[in-house]
Amino acid sequence: MKLWPATQYAEGIQQGDRLSLSRAITLSESALPQHQALAHEVMLLLREAHAAHAGKTLRLGITGVPGVGKSTFIETLGLQLVNAGLQVAVLPVDPTSPVSHGALLGDKTRMEELSRHPGVYIRPSPTGQTLGGVAARTREAIFLCEAAGFDIVIVETVGVGQSEVTVRNLVDLFLLLLLPGAGDELQGMKRGIMEMADALVINKVEEHNQLAGRQARVAYQNALHLFPLPPSGQPVPVMMASALQPPSVQVVWDQLRALQTNMQANGWWQQQRQKQHLHALHQLVQERALQQYFSQHDAAIKAAEQAVQSGLLPSIAVDNLP
Amino acid sequence: MKLWPATQYAEGIQQGDRLSLSRAITLSESALPQHQALAHEVMLLLREAHAAHAGKTLRLGITGVPGVGKSTFIETLGLQLVNAGLQVAVLPVDPTSPVSHGALLGDKTRMEELSRHPGVYIRPSPTGQTLGGVAARTREAIFLCEAAGFDIVIVETVGVGQSEVTVRNLVDLFLLLLLPGAGDELQGMKRGIMEMADALVINKVEEHNQLAGRQARVAYQNALHLFPLPPSGQPVPVMMASALQPPSVQVVWDQLRALQTNMQANGWWQQQRQKQHLHALHQLVQERALQQYFSQHDAAIKAAEQAVQSGLLPSIAVDNLP
Repeated sequence: MKLWPATQYAEGIQQGDRLSLSRAITLSESALPQHQALAHEVMLLLREAHAAHAGKTLRLGITGVPGVGKSTFIETLGLQLVNAGLQVAVLPVDPTSPVSHGALLGDKTRMEELSRHPGVYIRPSPTGQTLGGVAARTREAIFLCEAAGFDIVIVETVGVGQSEVTVRNLVDLFLLLLLPGAGDELQGMKRGIMEMADALVINKVEEHNQLAGRQARVAYQNALHLFPLPPSGQPVPVMMASALQPPSVQVVWDQLRALQTNMQANGWWQQQRQKQHLHALHQLVQERALQQYFSQHDAAIKAAEQAVQSGLLPSIAVDNLP
Repeated sequence: MKLWPATQYAEGIQQGDRLSLSRAITLSESALPQHQALAHEVMLLLREAHAAHAGKTLRLGITGVPGVGKSTFIETLGLQLVNAGLQVAVLPVDPTSPVSHGALLGDKTRMEELSRHPGVYIRPSPTGQTLGGVAARTREAIFLCEAAGFDIVIVETVGVGQSEVTVRNLVDLFLLLLLPGAGDELQGMKRGIMEMADALVINKVEEHNQLAGRQARVAYQNALHLFPLPPSGQPVPVMMASALQPPSVQVVWDQLRALQTNMQANGWWQQQRQKQHLHALHQLVQERALQQYFSQHDAAIKAAEQAVQSGLLPSIAVDNLP
């Protein structure tokens, strides 16, 4: 990869050049320290541009099991947003997939119309990273997209494993898509994911399955009554939608905007972003502390391991470490 | 607390003096560094006595929801063991309870006959500790009991929260007690706890509820088929028992001894103890590394927090730390 001076990326990004944006994100995803340092330099140059725009952006996380229709929902929603004059970036988070190129191709195909729109930027998922690495890289991608002027950043999870928690900690609003006919799903779904959501949408509700949709809505509304209110203080709306019926998606969007307005009014919106960033910092500081200690005291730790293997109590072996 | 020289505790413990044992455990549970140092000195003096006996001991974890009859089961089992000439220690693990004295009194009352037997030592749960602290302290208490000549150390969990994982990492065999009429319980129980068990016992199966007991046994056997074999390589037996019918508890014990024989033959027994101790060491080393880093770099971390709060990306803020 040929490197540019940091200013060239930063200027390109501020002028709306997609290639500059893509290359800066690629740098930030690189494992080479030299690339990461350059990426950080670019981001430092963009701090003011980002700060000027970030107060107006919305970071929307979307999750749901495979098959719930996330891509089609995002396509319909994204088209409405860009047609209303907003700029939309879509970032998938998939720490589990070793084959992101296949997944990307699939997504791009499914979001075909959206991906051709000039107001849209769809970025493939970084691979070969730890979950912590994926979180840090996605946070940087969000920053770069916002500095580039994007108004809405949609972060999509694959809906399996730990990616929901990662995404929840990156976004302002977390939307859970569900299928009509909720019985089995309610059982199988991790309770924890429902507890993290700001809004629920029963997706794929069309003419022929209105009844199943309404039943699911009641079931999820009842289930939500078992949880306390989210820390935002806002009750969790349970809506029905179909990506094939754009007005139903518009209703979802209006509700999300209403949540945004309320959370900005009660202070939660800014507070949550601050908490998320402080939490991320502490995670990174812990990683750094452990890495340093284990590399500096490698010999002493190996000696402690041997002592423990020959019968010394761990709590005594640790006494002998620096 | 009046302190003795380390040799006095160590000699007392080796001579079977319960007061010396209790005082050494109390020292190890103390938050005062001076007490902990003395406790470690005592344990170092006991290393040989412990090593000579530990190969013959059995550390048995017992868990189950409140009401499943753990105390009564332990009383019946414990009496059989001491009557067969074995020495039995019972250590409850209860990191959640702020009122151990009440719980202790309850346990002692419930295990009334057992607690009066000279071959038995029942130790209350340490309180005011983190889960990691409870694990380290209980591991030390097991060590001291084994050095004192106890053959069987029963570690009982309260059956809620994270205490099961803690206990699983302290013991050789992990026994899960269940109630007849398993339907609801199967749903509600964390799948993870069943996966950790070496053996399941449907408890409180008496004349009048044999059918419910057998139904539960079939249900749990079927549920177990969904899991891979435990790392010991031994299939998980599902038994029925009633603490009111001692022969049924004897059958459980015979099965546990058979598991022990098989695990010692295939090497898992020793391997597991080594893994547990190495894992505990790594946990303690991590705690130490974080504690050191956060205390040494307190000012730099606070500066990074402020930078993040004013909009710097966490991954860049961490670059500025030592």
